[in-house]
Amino acid sequence: MGENSRPGRTGLWLLGARGSVATTAIVGLAALRSGLVRPTGCVTELPAFGSAPLPGWDEIVVGGHDISGTDLHKTADALVSAGVLPVGVVSAVAAQLTAVESELRHGYDPATGGGDQAGEVARLAGDMGAFARRHDLERVVVVNVASTESPWPRGADLDDVAALDAALAAGEVPASVVAACAAVRAGCPYVEFTPSTGIAIPALLRMAEQRGLPYAGSDGKTGETLLRTVLAPMFTERALVVRSWAGTNLLGGGDGATLADPRAVASKLDSKSRGLHALLGGEVAAPLHIDNVPDLGQTKVAWDHVHAEGFLGAPVTLQLTWSAYDSALAAPLVLDLTRLVAMAHHAGQRGPLTALACFFKDPFGSAQHRFDHQVRGLHEWVRVTTEAAGGGA
Amino acid sequence: MGENSRPGRTGLWLLGARGSVATTAIVGLAALRSGLVRPTGCVTELPAFGSAPLPGWDEIVVGGHDISGTDLHKTADALVSAGVLPVGVVSAVAAQLTAVESELRHGYDPATGGGDQAGEVARLAGDMGAFARRHDLERVVVVNVASTESPWPRGADLDDVAALDAALAAGEVPASVVAACAAVRAGCPYVEFTPSTGIAIPALLRMAEQRGLPYAGSDGKTGETLLRTVLAPMFTERALVVRSWAGTNLLGGGDGATLADPRAVASKLDSKSRGLHALLGGEVAAPLHIDNVPDLGQTKVAWDHVHAEGFLGAPVTLQLTWSAYDSALAAPLVLDLTRLVAMAHHAGQRGPLTALACFFKDPFGSAQHRFDHQVRGLHEWVRVTTEAAGGGA
Amino acid sequence: MGENSRPGRTGLWLLGARGSVATTAIVGLAALRSGLVRPTGCVTELPAFGSAPLPGWDEIVVGGHDISGTDLHKTADALVSAGVLPVGVVSAVAAQLTAVESELRHGYDPATGGGDQAGEVARLAGDMGAFARRHDLERVVVVNVASTESPWPRGADLDDVAALDAALAAGEVPASVVAACAAVRAGCPYVEFTPSTGIAIPALLRMAEQRGLPYAGSDGKTGETLLRTVLAPMFTERALVVRSWAGTNLLGGGDGATLADPRAVASKLDSKSRGLHALLGGEVAAPLHIDNVPDLGQTKVAWDHVHAEGFLGAPVTLQLTWSAYDSALAAPLVLDLTRLVAMAHHAGQRGPLTALACFFKDPFGSAQHRFDHQVRGLHEWVRVTTEAAGGGA
Amino acid sequence: MGENSRPGRTGLWLLGARGSVATTAIVGLAALRSGLVRPTGCVTELPAFGSAPLPGWDEIVVGGHDISGTDLHKTADALVSAGVLPVGVVSAVAAQLTAVESELRHGYDPATGGGDQAGEVARLAGDMGAFARRHDLERVVVVNVASTESPWPRGADLDDVAALDAALAAGEVPASVVAACAAVRAGCPYVEFTPSTGIAIPALLRMAEQRGLPYAGSDGKTGETLLRTVLAPMFTERALVVRSWAGTNLLGGGDGATLADPRAVASKLDSKSRGLHALLGGEVAAPLHIDNVPDLGQTKVAWDHVHAEGFLGAPVTLQLTWSAYDSALAAPLVLDLTRLVAMAHHAGQRGPLTALACFFKDPFGSAQHRFDHQVRGLHEWVRVTTEAAGGGA
Repeated sequence: MGENSRPGRTGLWLLGARGSVATTAIVGLAALRSGLVRPTGCVTELPAFGSAPLPGWDEIVVGGHDISGTDLHKTADALVSAGVLPVGVVSAVAAQLTAVESELRHGYDPATGGGDQAGEVARLAGDMGAFARRHDLERVVVVNVASTESPWPRGADLDDVAALDAALAAGEVPASVVAACAAVRAGCPYVEFTPSTGIAIPALLRMAEQRGLPYAGSDGKTGETLLRTVLAPMFTERALVVRSWAGTNLLGGGDGATLADPRAVASKLDSKSRGLHALLGGEVAAPLHIDNVPDLGQTKVAWDHVHAEGFLGAPVTLQLTWSAYDSALAAPLVLDLTRLVAMAHHAGQRGPLTALACFFKDPFGSAQHRFDHQVRGLHEWVRVTTEAAGGGA
Repeated sequence: MGENSRPGRTGLWLLGARGSVATTAIVGLAALRSGLVRPTGCVTELPAFGSAPLPGWDEIVVGGHDISGTDLHKTADALVSAGVLPVGVVSAVAAQLTAVESELRHGYDPATGGGDQAGEVARLAGDMGAFARRHDLERVVVVNVASTESPWPRGADLDDVAALDAALAAGEVPASVVAACAAVRAGCPYVEFTPSTGIAIPALLRMAEQRGLPYAGSDGKTGETLLRTVLAPMFTERALVVRSWAGTNLLGGGDGATLADPRAVASKLDSKSRGLHALLGGEVAAPLHIDNVPDLGQTKVAWDHVHAEGFLGAPVTLQLTWSAYDSALAAPLVLDLTRLVAMAHHAGQRGPLTALACFFKDPFGSAQHRFDHQVRGLHEWVRVTTEAAGGGA
Repeated sequence: MGENSRPGRTGLWLLGARGSVATTAIVGLAALRSGLVRPTGCVTELPAFGSAPLPGWDEIVVGGHDISGTDLHKTADALVSAGVLPVGVVSAVAAQLTAVESELRHGYDPATGGGDQAGEVARLAGDMGAFARRHDLERVVVVNVASTESPWPRGADLDDVAALDAALAAGEVPASVVAACAAVRAGCPYVEFTPSTGIAIPALLRMAEQRGLPYAGSDGKTGETLLRTVLAPMFTERALVVRSWAGTNLLGGGDGATLADPRAVASKLDSKSRGLHALLGGEVAAPLHIDNVPDLGQTKVAWDHVHAEGFLGAPVTLQLTWSAYDSALAAPLVLDLTRLVAMAHHAGQRGPLTALACFFKDPFGSAQHRFDHQVRGLHEWVRVTTEAAGGGA
Repeated sequence: MGENSRPGRTGLWLLGARGSVATTAIVGLAALRSGLVRPTGCVTELPAFGSAPLPGWDEIVVGGHDISGTDLHKTADALVSAGVLPVGVVSAVAAQLTAVESELRHGYDPATGGGDQAGEVARLAGDMGAFARRHDLERVVVVNVASTESPWPRGADLDDVAALDAALAAGEVPASVVAACAAVRAGCPYVEFTPSTGIAIPALLRMAEQRGLPYAGSDGKTGETLLRTVLAPMFTERALVVRSWAGTNLLGGGDGATLADPRAVASKLDSKSRGLHALLGGEVAAPLHIDNVPDLGQTKVAWDHVHAEGFLGAPVTLQLTWSAYDSALAAPLVLDLTRLVAMAHHAGQRGPLTALACFFKDPFGSAQHRFDHQVRGLHEWVRVTTEAAGGGA
């Protein structure tokens, strides 16, 4: 890399490309590229990232897989009705949506294509590679924003490629892992934005590292967990002992329906709880619920009740209610991650990008859950990477 | 100072020594000294302070001024009834309360002693000095926890000692300033724990510095403001634009009654708002109320409603309700500040202790309101001061 | 009146016809008439009103006064952007909006027409009468939904018509009273939906009664006050003693801006507090705030904190947060009141319609604030009036 | 019964007599009898009950069963530490506690006495009868405040005494039913204050009626459900369509631990949900959780989130947080029910006392869940019963 070397044209390949998060990211990227909106919610547009060698909004090309066939324009219209997307913006970027629509391919569907998982890996990897060639891309960052799967405990035992191949041959592998295999096979950096298994099996992680691929995850930290990793350190820094931290999440939309499945919700609850216990210790009572409340549509409401003990045993209680469109919180982070992973890849970084911990509930390769420490780590990494690329102040 | 030099016996002289915060601090210190309770809520007992040269709980001797004559035991009993203090602890430390009771002196009362403010300064300074000699103290840290006064704009113009003396001669000086003059005159480090003027007039600050005295303030950051300075950076680090941050505080007790006076509340509201605007910029709508609700007794309830704008203009709302005994939050910080200021004084530090910003709503000498940055600053200062004293890891 | 006599074609003349509440009512009425929407929020569509002789949606014709000249379509579009009105509905009723637009006349504007209030009364009454003749209406119900005015204490002393005429001649009369004079002069039943003075001066009330006109008011009970008059009786029926009931209201929109004026807010706060003290007695601490928070747009957020004392002094606390588009809560009540007042007028009822107390924060002619008792009173009145008209089961 | 006939000396036999609710009721009754406290929280002390022929506080004698052996004084002290009972009151009534202590007998314990349920019924009935004779009581009202049991579906099939006897012989009957059998056998009116089965099996209900016994239940309506049955009618009377009503309950104490058992919680959740669906229809999404949070001690915190649809589909949201000591809410209702059931028994009423519906989550013999209608029903019944007894205004 020369001075001020920049990552260049970068693909963003979305797994679950027709879902709410993906559609919001696609519409938002188009709007940013067209200068229609301010980059509110985009971390990489903050001053601290001003001289970082990131791909510009107009250097990112989007494609992806999905098992749904619903047209992007239709999903975008539904998100307008739900209040997530502004009507004017969606109509202004209609042509860009059409362009992305033409880059979407049928994903791996366990219900129909389950029989030949090895073949499906090859097919998906082929789609990613063709996309890169078609658009002359330096790299394609694959980001999983598909529906949450249930935990796959067996994955932790798949230590070598042969074992993984055997599992594929047996048709036992979850969809997120099939897609992550394809990404690694196709030489793509990977971001796990859901709590699904995805790339997180030993054989795949090793393969990614060997091929010089950086990866990051898992489970985007957008709402309640973000709050928790900001607030829990406040209690500990004031020497207040948190005794219980109870939470209830109400959500509708597709996410609510997926998480109404007790197996899928198990992944999510695990992921959400880990940070809290890491920050406060295991003795905190922390009941947590996720309820499917369809009438809330795209809105996600989280209520937390914290009970702490202070000086001479005096009680302190804190209640929080967070209400937001989860897709609108997640989408800009997907774009930020695409840029940052592209920068890392361009800089020759490989393996888990621990500096991206602030974006995730359950960060790969990091035990750091404190948001303030995570943010400092991110800034430091950006500074160092920028300097190495010949940039910076 | 030699290796591992320690600050030694330290006085804590409380202005408003018979109030709820002071009584809670006095009872708590006695309980800590006797090993009756764990140091929950005491920042200086966290691991980061483990090797710092702080006075031990048994090296701190308490005295103070108050214009009320209510016996400490009586106030302590009232705090037991209110739920702030545990009944067993108060009876176990009764003898220590009696000892402190004997160290309390009548404070400066504008209603009766207004005529001769210069004489009152001398009298108060005399009380402080006699206390130091009586107990053979290395220093006496004066901490103001008396009732909040209204703002005193004239104070900002008192640039030299002559002007201050003239104001004293004219009997125009607020009680907190009279007491702060006495503290400086008596060679005592000073902590302004309320939003009153206290030491914060140019002539006094300069005098303190000249006499080698460190000082810190103002207005202890215990509840709602603490939350705000923790949460506001979360929004900015996620590039979410806060549009409004509305707050309502309900409080009873003496504090509620004092703040029912619109002039006194003005000090408090100024102090509370400053941090928010510093963190988010001045364009945030931030209506704020403090209501006297006597039936809440010692409980303070704060409700905050935050409205932010996210990606593509999507709204985010956060509501917080904080409920706690304010005295129980403030008291351990008073003890922490006594220890830390003693350490600073022993180390020869003078002037505003900006490293203590995390303890205050409106920190002297610092524009830093972010709690995470403040905490880092504190830890760094403790590390450096500890090393300079020959301690540390 | 014969058997099953019905009130027939009825005018709804809106004071403040271009505001958010009026526009929402106009769009909603059009949508109901066209069968585009279900009558959610319309009390008069509940089963209890099934056989009442009310004018049908297609028998109500709308006109009104406003001092703004902003086109209804434009206001409707703004309400679509704000999320209050569904985009499809507004476009489907565009022609009906145009029709109403042609029935709007310039209102009385103190800033410009202040000089000749008697002449203005005559002009406004003329507009109302012409409207009735133009559409061959049985009656015109005038409903004030214009901006809240400050209290007008002098109004209470205007006991006879001569005194009122003198005040008009002197140009001293608030706009709402000028318009109410016009309504009475024109023989129109009147509904005061705001806390402004309107018809509530002795001379006008007597004149209305003499002319056989029913009237109702004041200040529509839509949100926080509705909750309070539902919940306060729960405490009293359980013998729990409410000690404090604190409230904060955050609102944007035009209403927020109007109520940022401390004189206007005084009317509103009076009106809101009256019911609570009537239900719980005067010893309840009840601080109440209304804050203008422009970024909330049409959303109104109310937070209430209730502290009660139970058995053996045990505390009970209840917190409420209510969030809604106030215009969407008010608009259907405006339509309900139009129908119910038309029914009363048709039945020959005159003077204050105390049976409509459940619709108001500060009901004319009634000291009953309990919502359950008010609802029972409404149902009983509807039953009796329906039977008298020859209808009912 | 003659004129102004009064029910006379009445026993209150508590099942679970050493628990928090029972102890609070016992202490409170003693304090009321001694005139130490005002009857806050006691419905029967409201003006509407002023002339009703109820037993006086000094006419109620308390005894009971429990399987725990913890002394009442000890439980009372624990409730003082927890903040539920005032320290002064407990010490002032110590002698009365000792008197009640001497009236407590060992209850039926499935863990140890499971073998001979018929014998246990006889033993428990014997205790109740002996208590009545010992104190020369007109009747003994048995009130179940023991721990919640899991549902017992088989109970609904026990139509005749033979079947019930067979189940007892087989040792299959839950503890609450064993105790209710004893109560009926001993000729005692019965109140089911928990969601356990208790008297609610066909054979027992018929037997109670035949023996001239009134009964009431089930599951005291103290907190969240009370709020729901007050607020749900507000929405329906305003024609607002509730789409979801989500709830989370956090509780510690013994109740929390009992309800951590998923089988016990099933009873409670059933009981809590029934009213909501009755009031709003079955289409409301109503996820509900009860979490054991031991550090909350006696405090019960309930959070409800209501989402409704208003005019033209506009959303309305309401959040509620209720925080109280559940025992302090339940105890006065236990005393009220004792008095009211005594009055009913004295008046010769038998079978389900539907007029007492306002006290229960799941009222026996009534489908009326609206609190306002229930209260009206109670008042009407008291009026009629009072008049029949020769009293009243």
